[in-house]
Amino acid sequence: MKDHEESLAALRGEIDEINEQLLALIQQRGELVLEIARVKQAGGLEGPDPEREADILRRLTAHADGPFGASAIRDIFKAILRASLDIQEEARHALMRVYASDLVPAGGILVGDVAIGAGVPVIMAGPCSIESREQMEEVATLVAALPGLRILRGGAYKPRTNPYTFQGLREEGLDILQETARRHGLRTVTEVLDTSTLDAVAAHTDMLQVGARNMYNTELLKAIGRLRKPVLLKRGFMATIEELLLSAEYILAEGNENVVLCERGIRTFERATRNTLDISAVALLKKETSLPVIVDLSHALGRKDIMLPCARAALAAGADGLMFETHPRPERALSDGLQQLDPTEFHHMMVGLGLAAEPVSSTAQGARP
Amino acid sequence: MKDHEESLAALRGEIDEINEQLLALIQQRGELVLEIARVKQAGGLEGPDPEREADILRRLTAHADGPFGASAIRDIFKAILRASLDIQEEARHALMRVYASDLVPAGGILVGDVAIGAGVPVIMAGPCSIESREQMEEVATLVAALPGLRILRGGAYKPRTNPYTFQGLREEGLDILQETARRHGLRTVTEVLDTSTLDAVAAHTDMLQVGARNMYNTELLKAIGRLRKPVLLKRGFMATIEELLLSAEYILAEGNENVVLCERGIRTFERATRNTLDISAVALLKKETSLPVIVDLSHALGRKDIMLPCARAALAAGADGLMFETHPRPERALSDGLQQLDPTEFHHMMVGLGLAAEPVSSTAQGARP
Amino acid sequence: MKDHEESLAALRGEIDEINEQLLALIQQRGELVLEIARVKQAGGLEGPDPEREADILRRLTAHADGPFGASAIRDIFKAILRASLDIQEEARHALMRVYASDLVPAGGILVGDVAIGAGVPVIMAGPCSIESREQMEEVATLVAALPGLRILRGGAYKPRTNPYTFQGLREEGLDILQETARRHGLRTVTEVLDTSTLDAVAAHTDMLQVGARNMYNTELLKAIGRLRKPVLLKRGFMATIEELLLSAEYILAEGNENVVLCERGIRTFERATRNTLDISAVALLKKETSLPVIVDLSHALGRKDIMLPCARAALAAGADGLMFETHPRPERALSDGLQQLDPTEFHHMMVGLGLAAEPVSSTAQGARP
Amino acid sequence: MKDHEESLAALRGEIDEINEQLLALIQQRGELVLEIARVKQAGGLEGPDPEREADILRRLTAHADGPFGASAIRDIFKAILRASLDIQEEARHALMRVYASDLVPAGGILVGDVAIGAGVPVIMAGPCSIESREQMEEVATLVAALPGLRILRGGAYKPRTNPYTFQGLREEGLDILQETARRHGLRTVTEVLDTSTLDAVAAHTDMLQVGARNMYNTELLKAIGRLRKPVLLKRGFMATIEELLLSAEYILAEGNENVVLCERGIRTFERATRNTLDISAVALLKKETSLPVIVDLSHALGRKDIMLPCARAALAAGADGLMFETHPRPERALSDGLQQLDPTEFHHMMVGLGLAAEPVSSTAQGARP
Repeated sequence: MKDHEESLAALRGEIDEINEQLLALIQQRGELVLEIARVKQAGGLEGPDPEREADILRRLTAHADGPFGASAIRDIFKAILRASLDIQEEARHALMRVYASDLVPAGGILVGDVAIGAGVPVIMAGPCSIESREQMEEVATLVAALPGLRILRGGAYKPRTNPYTFQGLREEGLDILQETARRHGLRTVTEVLDTSTLDAVAAHTDMLQVGARNMYNTELLKAIGRLRKPVLLKRGFMATIEELLLSAEYILAEGNENVVLCERGIRTFERATRNTLDISAVALLKKETSLPVIVDLSHALGRKDIMLPCARAALAAGADGLMFETHPRPERALSDGLQQLDPTEFHHMMVGLGLAAEPVSSTAQGARP
Repeated sequence: MKDHEESLAALRGEIDEINEQLLALIQQRGELVLEIARVKQAGGLEGPDPEREADILRRLTAHADGPFGASAIRDIFKAILRASLDIQEEARHALMRVYASDLVPAGGILVGDVAIGAGVPVIMAGPCSIESREQMEEVATLVAALPGLRILRGGAYKPRTNPYTFQGLREEGLDILQETARRHGLRTVTEVLDTSTLDAVAAHTDMLQVGARNMYNTELLKAIGRLRKPVLLKRGFMATIEELLLSAEYILAEGNENVVLCERGIRTFERATRNTLDISAVALLKKETSLPVIVDLSHALGRKDIMLPCARAALAAGADGLMFETHPRPERALSDGLQQLDPTEFHHMMVGLGLAAEPVSSTAQGARP
Repeated sequence: MKDHEESLAALRGEIDEINEQLLALIQQRGELVLEIARVKQAGGLEGPDPEREADILRRLTAHADGPFGASAIRDIFKAILRASLDIQEEARHALMRVYASDLVPAGGILVGDVAIGAGVPVIMAGPCSIESREQMEEVATLVAALPGLRILRGGAYKPRTNPYTFQGLREEGLDILQETARRHGLRTVTEVLDTSTLDAVAAHTDMLQVGARNMYNTELLKAIGRLRKPVLLKRGFMATIEELLLSAEYILAEGNENVVLCERGIRTFERATRNTLDISAVALLKKETSLPVIVDLSHALGRKDIMLPCARAALAAGADGLMFETHPRPERALSDGLQQLDPTEFHHMMVGLGLAAEPVSSTAQGARP
Repeated sequence: MKDHEESLAALRGEIDEINEQLLALIQQRGELVLEIARVKQAGGLEGPDPEREADILRRLTAHADGPFGASAIRDIFKAILRASLDIQEEARHALMRVYASDLVPAGGILVGDVAIGAGVPVIMAGPCSIESREQMEEVATLVAALPGLRILRGGAYKPRTNPYTFQGLREEGLDILQETARRHGLRTVTEVLDTSTLDAVAAHTDMLQVGARNMYNTELLKAIGRLRKPVLLKRGFMATIEELLLSAEYILAEGNENVVLCERGIRTFERATRNTLDISAVALLKKETSLPVIVDLSHALGRKDIMLPCARAALAAGADGLMFETHPRPERALSDGLQQLDPTEFHHMMVGLGLAAEPVSSTAQGARP
């Protein structure tokens, strides 16, 4: 056993030496790669060239006559090529904007005078769909009565799965939202569905919402990027976290840096909840980007009975805000009736989160527990 | 035991009688529901009234003083209300178009002179992205040489996840596609991303494609519905089969009945394939609708080594056609290089599907197995 | 319009009357159903009879000659039959144990002298695998030094995916675990894989763990149910919440009510984390059952950099405890090296959760941030 | 531009030279790695040493002072270490058995005199649960009447989700299965749930089945590996293809090479089918291993109306056999009633697959279409 261990030590010494030589060569290779990038840029030449890479791999694996077979050699050199690509990319972009640490000012992202990502959780509340002036009046009164609440939500353009269900009041809805919010001193967020209605929506709201179904809609993202209006970008219900960050980059790349991300649940096999709230996504987004992150509890859960503990969890995980659907009479709602909080439930939620005082009179009037 | 069985028989007789009474009452109730639908339509009144339903349920469950508790009573009456809603819906729409058996003429859906859904499997082939006139010329030559192949695909507008990757040649790509196809006597299909470029795309192609990322883009679906051009509607990788049918209904509802559905894999936990080809979706769509169904194998699998058996499976499950990505030099492709078949691989695929004769000269030149 | 509304009101009045008649008949039918259940029990006859139900449905739908078609009638009566089944079940089981509100005593479930579910969060910590006496000694010292920590975990029998990787020290591991814990005054939890080793494991540990891969192992669940030892039942990474509760019921039904549930992440399409921590499962389990719920953060996340915010979220959602993997030298661990906290990281985690004082000397020695 | 291209060519030449030097060093390093493996084996020393690897990476990344940062260097050397590990593994196992091309003899795997994987598709049919001698007699008569059918299935031990539902006839069921099959000249396959009942099950059946819930049950797999009886190993409904192959390796590693794999659908977000039949898994398994692959259509789909096209797809994808649940009176079945074919449906299925002649008399008696 002693002899074996001695042999082992000797062999390991040899490997260590080779490792050092490999390291030196790899760094030398890196210098050449950066030089190539500079030459290309100076000459206006194209970036990475897949054919050249394929050539390299083909040549190196053509006569694999050592212990490593062609596929092992291919894997190792692919790692080297990928790392080379990475340093070229860094040189070109100085990293993507979405990962930049200076992206969001200390004061957060401003929606009018409401700062998101500045340390105080922001609540956005309102009905799924804008249905009438009276309905919005009731909701706005409810929201405006609570000291910390300043952003009213409501859908004017609704991306419904079924073409025969209510599609939103559209232009009329925008008008109701804007006018009601103005009277109550609230800010607004509402969804934009398409580039053709972007200007109209942008003219009537303080913050644009890109819904989960539109997270991959690159044409819309680019068009929003050319505005300077704050955007709430929702994660697609089947989108990875990386894809969400890349969608944000579409907006940032065009110059609009007022982006707020929104986790709203992902589609999984579990059906006890409408979607599965991905709480680790909140923690991960907070780590990867300085953009604020809010959580839409109504769509994530699709049920109200566990909304309070999940809202607390979202804040504990680091969320910068929460979004709730609330409706004066959920049982009459034209969409998503089951998940919208009625006024009493909404007030209880705010009390549970420490954002409202214990209700007195309303409970007397028969509030639900 | 005998006594027990006698009691049992007697009790069951009583239940049978009650069942008959319930049945009669329920049918009587159905007549009233239909009468209400007629009155509403005549009076231009709104359809179903959720508040009225909530009232009914509230009243019936207010004093649940029998063996069934409030929630059981609620469930039973919800079933009755749902069935009532269904017969009202039927009366209103005479069923959705997408489920109609007369939707597609016997000759199938025509893309120029190519019939889809008329009994002969249709192959659509071409590169992921249109990159140059030369590239398309090579692909078109390859496709046109095979007797059964008539539809050339290629992306001019590319919905890429990363904003810094190739976004397509756009207008120039449309022009290359149309011009190349015309010279080779081929028909074309290409993706449209947004309502703002719909007219331009429609003017340059025989068939529009709605990509997986746009399946929920209701504004785009409606706009396409107002045209009469054939559409290839791809299933979102996160969409249920029912959602795909409802997206098709958006197009049909506007009057465009030239819709072809496309299964292209769904996102699951499995990573051996890029997506999971949902073969039962093919069988199910063929059963639920008369619209033709094709399968995009390149996106479903993301790898080429198992494409032939999966293509055979798709046809065996009833698919009306298949879509493949093919590129003269996949290793140089500007997008999706790994899943595109090179000319030899594509020819082998067609041979394997019985759509081309065994290649002679090309194998001599060193074709891959 | 006036006339229409009057007709409407009249028709609705008629429907209301029919609803009342239906309600009365349904309750009357419920009485008969309960009577049948009593007769069957008295006579030792079998419970629900699917053939009888099939007969009923067949007869009622045989001549569907009203506005409701056979399938609507079938749906309505299925709702009635289901509700009938429910009240029979209630009569038989007086509900399942897992849903009973009196299941857990006020003092919680006792693992030795450690109470789980009694208001104070319980931390379980230790390495993935028991590897040696020295390793466990180091971990036990670390754990025992923190005032709130009393339960040591460690795997002796390891259910590894690959048969050629470390399978655990088995009997020897059990012995090390028990002996080390005893010396440090700690309680233990360790996994049992199979009925054949259940007795041995039970003799060496204070709490049995059923791993995620064994949640559906009904034979093992039944055997554990016949013991009185506390069990930590982990949710399968592919199991719905309802399935987890039914697995718990397997144990409860045999008489062992010392069950603690554990959420440990589910398998989804997202790969940024090893699994997706289902935070709403915690809230939902706390609502549906009185059994305590703990969260295994190491397996849920598979990465350490977002563990603290997720741990906070778990507690905020109502978890009764947390489980962490910790190892003296994770980079040397024989399994799951990437997700195990080293001593400094573990101490930081406890500080972050308010369960330990700010470390002084250890940071001086070069702790990681 | 000319100058730039010249500079580019020169730089690329330099890179090519470095590539060659890297290649030579890497192969030299490979020789040392293999030598170390030999020394360790001779000395009975442990295999790969994670600490040593961690040391190497730490040292190489300690002073990353070139263009590649520490994390890029780490990635490249990880690729080298992984490849080194791979060639060591190859040296140790001469590859895993499951990937060996000589695993299955030309005559296939024999279940009695029935060969699976020998070119002719094998059908396994029978009820979900064995319920009585009469029921099995009827099924066996049906199966034995069809010339190509030789394997009878039926569950004696049932792994049910709910503890209060039928758990199988257990020993009595085994006896019924064996006795009925013997009289009809059929072979049998039935599920084994646990090591404690393995011997009893093995004594009564020709082929053991490991169910989807037990695919990760390593203790059971090892115990089965020590027998020589054929095994049908079902893929877990949330297991990757690689995990299925590793579970098979557990059995193979113990010496039992009579393993047949079974795809039975995976759990996804889609609910139109009970699970999602993963057809590409069939193609992939056929490519990766020489073990036969069969498809369980009843569990994959959970519905009968699309079973025939999916069965055709499974065979087209290369499946060596199919499994169906069939029951004399599915509406009376004690489990899985909805997905079991009644005798007429089963006969139609066999006709549709070309495995039976067109039924004459039975259709006259009122068969379902």
